[in-house]
Amino acid sequence: MVERALDETGREIELLDLSEVPDDALVIPTAMMGAPTCIVEKLPNGSELVSSFQRLEGHLGKKGFATMPIEAGGMNSMMPLVVGLRLGIPVVDGDGMGRAFPELFHETFHIYGVSGSPLVLTNDHLDTCVIEAHDNFALEWFARGLTIRMGGVGYIAEFPMDGATAKRVSVSGTIGLGLRVGRAIREAREAHRDPFDAISETFASTEYTPAKVIFEGKVTEVNRRTEQGWAMGSVRIAPHADASSDEELFISFQNENIIAKQGDHVLAVVPDLICVLDSDTAEPITTEELRYGQRVKVMAVQVPDIMRTPEALAVWGPRHFGIDMDYQPMAV
Amino acid sequence: MVERALDETGREIELLDLSEVPDDALVIPTAMMGAPTCIVEKLPNGSELVSSFQRLEGHLGKKGFATMPIEAGGMNSMMPLVVGLRLGIPVVDGDGMGRAFPELFHETFHIYGVSGSPLVLTNDHLDTCVIEAHDNFALEWFARGLTIRMGGVGYIAEFPMDGATAKRVSVSGTIGLGLRVGRAIREAREAHRDPFDAISETFASTEYTPAKVIFEGKVTEVNRRTEQGWAMGSVRIAPHADASSDEELFISFQNENIIAKQGDHVLAVVPDLICVLDSDTAEPITTEELRYGQRVKVMAVQVPDIMRTPEALAVWGPRHFGIDMDYQPMAV
Repeated sequence: MVERALDETGREIELLDLSEVPDDALVIPTAMMGAPTCIVEKLPNGSELVSSFQRLEGHLGKKGFATMPIEAGGMNSMMPLVVGLRLGIPVVDGDGMGRAFPELFHETFHIYGVSGSPLVLTNDHLDTCVIEAHDNFALEWFARGLTIRMGGVGYIAEFPMDGATAKRVSVSGTIGLGLRVGRAIREAREAHRDPFDAISETFASTEYTPAKVIFEGKVTEVNRRTEQGWAMGSVRIAPHADASSDEELFISFQNENIIAKQGDHVLAVVPDLICVLDSDTAEPITTEELRYGQRVKVMAVQVPDIMRTPEALAVWGPRHFGIDMDYQPMAV
Repeated sequence: MVERALDETGREIELLDLSEVPDDALVIPTAMMGAPTCIVEKLPNGSELVSSFQRLEGHLGKKGFATMPIEAGGMNSMMPLVVGLRLGIPVVDGDGMGRAFPELFHETFHIYGVSGSPLVLTNDHLDTCVIEAHDNFALEWFARGLTIRMGGVGYIAEFPMDGATAKRVSVSGTIGLGLRVGRAIREAREAHRDPFDAISETFASTEYTPAKVIFEGKVTEVNRRTEQGWAMGSVRIAPHADASSDEELFISFQNENIIAKQGDHVLAVVPDLICVLDSDTAEPITTEELRYGQRVKVMAVQVPDIMRTPEALAVWGPRHFGIDMDYQPMAV
């Protein structure tokens, strides 16, 4: 989608550092919302998100200066680039999660006091809905319900804010970080080096550290269902025959991986990152792509301090996902 | 609610005949949406509907000249009167169903080509949603989903239209008809006459005819569940011991009564009215008020020709409600 938008518009992507955004400029984050399992069934054409962005501009009576991602997740890091290209506006290098999470209020924007409303939700028929809710939990509840009735996928513009606010409440530089990680993997592959070493080295110079392989094996079971508008489920990964233990790894997910454990021993839990990657190529395998027989390495990445404050853990710690434990830093 | 609005505003209700509405005036119908079983649990305070009306005015950038009911149903005949009083605007004497029906597209407004969008839905927290859908079926689907997430009740302003359109697509005079039927019942009670005779006589001079008692007995079983946002269920009524047949009457409902039959013999079916009334007082018993042991008479009322055209039956005939039969006029 980004490549097509590059071709069709003849434009280049203008990535803007948060510090470059004028304090009084209107920033409107854009994203896809729903179950990734549904999203992959039908790609959007790109007009849905542009429509949400413009509809929100119309509602606010003000032009948007830039868009930005709400999360540093695969698809939702890319979608704002399409919006930026189609509208000829910059994309702010940062996001509202510092990773990916399944719900709208799992955002630093929310944690640090910004209202997600008004939110515009558009589907592939360009049906639109402008929601104004009294808090971000009600906003998530209503928008999720509509997303389900739209077939599991919607396209949103939300958390409109001025530049000064965006600087205060965003996780900075995550698109650039994604680029650096991707480049490190590509260059390692080209040099026939271990891409996992390259990933750990890249993260070592950032606040996302440590980043290490916590398990290696073969996918033996995937349970996945679309429930309440999310891809819910779990995956079991058996260790290789020569491993020191024959205990399998169990990961449960709600769109994103929530917890990784061997028996009762927790290796990593939200908000730390649990990443399943192809053993050979280090290509990420998102939850909707998990399949029996995949040979994988599982990496855990400790997230920056700002994502592990008491306020942040109250929103996206283990208990929010129904796991009866306090957050514990990943085993290193 | 109407009495309180009368007291608090000091205004009188201004009922306007359709012919009195200027062709270019904006008419915005207002209504409650949801399961009556939920609505009776928590009465609105009236500001929800006013908020929807005003939000839709703001969205359209035009003042509403009047409101009107979308259906000639108990609560939804009354709600626009509250809006009219609170805002000091007239209420058009007519509606969009000529009776009550459970879904938004069960409207003459829809059947004769008006878009229900934009629709504004507000809840008791004054959360609002402006929905613009590509057709009225999608509109119902999205609004129903939101209503469910609002706890089963929402307050809507929809089908905004000009006066010329309202004249073309509305069922005229149904508030006035309701007043005449109510007055006939009250006067019959006061004169110790049979109120059921009074009802039939009142309808005889209208297009809602014939209107007759088709069954008499005692409620022996009520099945009711809130499902998909509606009050779904059925009621069984046993005949009195001295009746000519001991066959019970079975009525199924989706918010409103859909079909009345004895065994396989259909006595009445949508869109004709099936009304359960208290045997002594002729007080109507709506589906959420049905209880074991009630002594009732069931009246059927044949609706006007315009509600039984092929276009109308395609929208609200028996098959729409999952009943595998064509419409048949009530047994007279």
